[in-house]
Amino acid sequence: MSANADSYVVGIDFGTLSGRAVVVRVSDGAELGSAVHEYAHGVIEEELPGSGVRLGPDWALQSPEDWRDVLRTAVPKALAVAGVPASKVIGVGTDFTACTVLPATAGGTPLCELFPDRPHAWPKLWKHHAAQPHADRINELAESRGEPWLRRYGGKISSEWEFAKGLQVLEEDPELYARAERWIEAADWIIWQLTGVETRNICTAGYKGIYQDGAYPSADFLAALNPAFAGFTAKLAREVAPLGGLAGRLTAQAAEWTRLPEGIAVAVGNVDAHVTSAAADAVRPGQMVAIMGTSTCHVMPADRLAEVPGMCGVVRDGIVPGLWGYEAGQSGVGDIFAWFARTGVPASYAERAAARGETIHEHLTSLAERQPVGAHGLVALDWHNGNRSVLVDHNLSGVIVGQTLATRPEDVYRALIEATAFGTRVIVETFEDSGVPVEEFIAAGGLLKNRFLMQVYADVLRRPLSVIASDQGPALGSAIHAAVAAGAYPDITAASAAMGKRTPAAYLPDAARADVYDRLYAEYRRLHDHFADGAMLHRLRAIRNAATADTAISDDTAVSDDTAI
Amino acid sequence: MSANADSYVVGIDFGTLSGRAVVVRVSDGAELGSAVHEYAHGVIEEELPGSGVRLGPDWALQSPEDWRDVLRTAVPKALAVAGVPASKVIGVGTDFTACTVLPATAGGTPLCELFPDRPHAWPKLWKHHAAQPHADRINELAESRGEPWLRRYGGKISSEWEFAKGLQVLEEDPELYARAERWIEAADWIIWQLTGVETRNICTAGYKGIYQDGAYPSADFLAALNPAFAGFTAKLAREVAPLGGLAGRLTAQAAEWTRLPEGIAVAVGNVDAHVTSAAADAVRPGQMVAIMGTSTCHVMPADRLAEVPGMCGVVRDGIVPGLWGYEAGQSGVGDIFAWFARTGVPASYAERAAARGETIHEHLTSLAERQPVGAHGLVALDWHNGNRSVLVDHNLSGVIVGQTLATRPEDVYRALIEATAFGTRVIVETFEDSGVPVEEFIAAGGLLKNRFLMQVYADVLRRPLSVIASDQGPALGSAIHAAVAAGAYPDITAASAAMGKRTPAAYLPDAARADVYDRLYAEYRRLHDHFADGAMLHRLRAIRNAATADTAISDDTAVSDDTAI
Repeated sequence: MSANADSYVVGIDFGTLSGRAVVVRVSDGAELGSAVHEYAHGVIEEELPGSGVRLGPDWALQSPEDWRDVLRTAVPKALAVAGVPASKVIGVGTDFTACTVLPATAGGTPLCELFPDRPHAWPKLWKHHAAQPHADRINELAESRGEPWLRRYGGKISSEWEFAKGLQVLEEDPELYARAERWIEAADWIIWQLTGVETRNICTAGYKGIYQDGAYPSADFLAALNPAFAGFTAKLAREVAPLGGLAGRLTAQAAEWTRLPEGIAVAVGNVDAHVTSAAADAVRPGQMVAIMGTSTCHVMPADRLAEVPGMCGVVRDGIVPGLWGYEAGQSGVGDIFAWFARTGVPASYAERAAARGETIHEHLTSLAERQPVGAHGLVALDWHNGNRSVLVDHNLSGVIVGQTLATRPEDVYRALIEATAFGTRVIVETFEDSGVPVEEFIAAGGLLKNRFLMQVYADVLRRPLSVIASDQGPALGSAIHAAVAAGAYPDITAASAAMGKRTPAAYLPDAARADVYDRLYAEYRRLHDHFADGAMLHRLRAIRNAATADTAISDDTAVSDDTAI
Repeated sequence: MSANADSYVVGIDFGTLSGRAVVVRVSDGAELGSAVHEYAHGVIEEELPGSGVRLGPDWALQSPEDWRDVLRTAVPKALAVAGVPASKVIGVGTDFTACTVLPATAGGTPLCELFPDRPHAWPKLWKHHAAQPHADRINELAESRGEPWLRRYGGKISSEWEFAKGLQVLEEDPELYARAERWIEAADWIIWQLTGVETRNICTAGYKGIYQDGAYPSADFLAALNPAFAGFTAKLAREVAPLGGLAGRLTAQAAEWTRLPEGIAVAVGNVDAHVTSAAADAVRPGQMVAIMGTSTCHVMPADRLAEVPGMCGVVRDGIVPGLWGYEAGQSGVGDIFAWFARTGVPASYAERAAARGETIHEHLTSLAERQPVGAHGLVALDWHNGNRSVLVDHNLSGVIVGQTLATRPEDVYRALIEATAFGTRVIVETFEDSGVPVEEFIAAGGLLKNRFLMQVYADVLRRPLSVIASDQGPALGSAIHAAVAAGAYPDITAASAAMGKRTPAAYLPDAARADVYDRLYAEYRRLHDHFADGAMLHRLRAIRNAATADTAISDDTAVSDDTAI
């Protein structure tokens, strides 16, 4: 593949607040330059741009023009930084948050560009949670009818997904629903912008669009939710494209935006979490990649189908063609540490951290890591933002046990880190107990930079921890998919092997520490099982909701069930 | 009693860090002047004064000379502040922390003044907790032998009490034990200093000295603990004096110290918590006085004997002659709020409090009190310093349930306040369920100043809350006892009616709030009962202790089981 040594691909990662482009060498995955573009509108939560129309609680929208701006600004800038001539770029790949979904015309025009003062015309960001009642109805009906696809999603679909958000549009703005000829993931819409042709990728179709075994939920099922919803799937994919496939060729318009050559390969759309597997060269059965940030998303290919309790989903070809792709998630991880650092640490710590030139997180970590395992006497449940896997209940909440008058902030901080590690262990054990072996655990995402935390995970899991060796995993993964789409490699596995970056066994478990963690984990499991039915936690939430019924609450219902990296 | 209008008494309260004298008018209890003397040595926890001999973990000693200094300085100063001529003072009364106990010669000389470099020669302060192994053995043996007195103490005696501390002296310094002709409460030793004669008050004898139905534990029992301990009670009271009784007359020496007239009445010694009942005019059956400070002590006279689970003790004549005196306690109250304010509140709160001229406690309270009941969605267990009543387990620890990413410091603060109120409700309900009615609940102590907290207690208890109308309750109570000893009143009840100060029903429960608190209390009870066996909390502590085995731990084992006001 000597040609690859002077060929390049561009990966573009569309995140929650910004988009990032990276220029990658095809032969070895070297990341030669990157650029970030912050969205002008960010997350639209209060009112619509321009018209000022107010949004309800739990709404979260985005602007398609912000995404186009990433193509116009970040891509040319990354090329310039890389010092790579555009003529040597052979392909483009993208990944997106999901489920971020929008209504569009049959020509691909977002309805918000036609009806800018109608809230339901705008793209609904993954963390739009106003469709919870619709998700509840979908779940209840599916459960009562025994719909076979429900078990592919751990027994519950999320309010974030395509059908819940679509049903909300229908019932709250039926006229706009009627005008939506297409209901499309942003992951696929951006490909349409680049190629001029509509495609639908198997990843979002499967994980977010309830597309299983070649079909969507039946018209009969949808009609039982609402007769006018029966034809909903006509707005979705006609056919589904494989990951790593060629979606189309870069149009003249898109070439003008990106300054890339017209006609180069554009890969089928993808999701930020799932595409990270390629970046980590972790696309073989049993390689579990945990993308650890504000929340954690676990993705893993496997050669067999199983019903894993509380997983987010299992999709054939959902990560790489030919394998089952599993997804699980922890709905609060870095978010919990950030909450504690913001609300639970006294001035004296902030002053000492500042004097030492450390962040609060670094300071707490430096204090926490000195302790012997178990010295704080605490165990916590990491449910401050609910629990996706394995309980699938976003109305759970956090618990901490064992505080004394000698308990210090670093003790609680450490206990919270450990709680998320225990939560991960529950997920790993649940997969293995369900007959899906986890052969290797690979960490990716923003929390990688906390080496103490990584060591805790290795010790708690009692296994070596591999880490991704790139700090722009999703964009690199998209570039790898671009190389496959451009024909530089025969498949994702081969491209990942050449271009992906992983440090195997970067952290090794310590047997003595792991022994003590086993004892603490036993307590975590007891606490987990005691509060798992949610009885007390739901009652407390009901008391809270009744007490605050007069004021809109939108503060803690945000459950990002996967892709907030 | 017209003579009383120009007669005065002096009450002296010996606390943990200082002693306070107050000059009180006999006719109406008017507090005319007071003065405080801080102990020069405070609490001796690290090393002995002078010799520098190091102390072990959990040790806490005091110096008798500090107590004499209170007589020499605070009493004359209070007289001067009051502008009352010494000639008009007819009596002196005192109260002390308990069990604070010392070895002395038959003449009353503290052994630490003869052997200053021997740790066991010094007075052991109430919160000396190094005798826990000895208390454990006493409890195990009493349980196995079915000693009838054990049930008078809720099933367990404390490591703070006379027998546990005495057994520690015997086994760790037998020579000094042999030289201790007397083993005497500081409450009685100070009376000996004032009168020149040894007396023993029924309050400390009963609550701290296992003196029940006219007898101590048998020599047979004591010998089974350690043959050399069989004669221990010979170092204690020969006979026991009633509260409000005349212990003796002020000696020339003590008159010189205090500048009070030689020969005036000196009342029998007393304990700070119990004497507060007189100050609050709450010495009738069913009047429960809660002295709320770092911990809370509940004292209540009753006309019947019952076995109340988890009480600290029941003593005939222990509060007032003729009635059974009950005592219960919560081992952490204000201590928990102080711990949270110190360790759990971020800089932004400290800055805002400072800008508003508020303490952290005032600021948190002002934020917490605006919330509707239950709006924080939390419930906590107030066991950060263990639980005395009703579980009698100082190895329990705190729990908090229901935290989300929206939980704020004021939410946790309020939940902790509520948890202590729920803990109080458990105690009140346990008394009533045991056939001992609580007719009136009277609050005293430093937490009185937090009006929001008081209202929470009224709402949680669903009953009017009376409050003591003096901020120097123990000293006022001692003065009332002095008036009785001097013959100005026929008994404590009459003197309290004239001189004690209580605002009945100062806080009234609100039915709507109380209804929501009933729901939260139901959750507290569930949590309480789930963790009551201590299984998980003890395991966490065992893990902690193993992890920290190399370092001395003395931080969170301090359980003040009553009198730290």
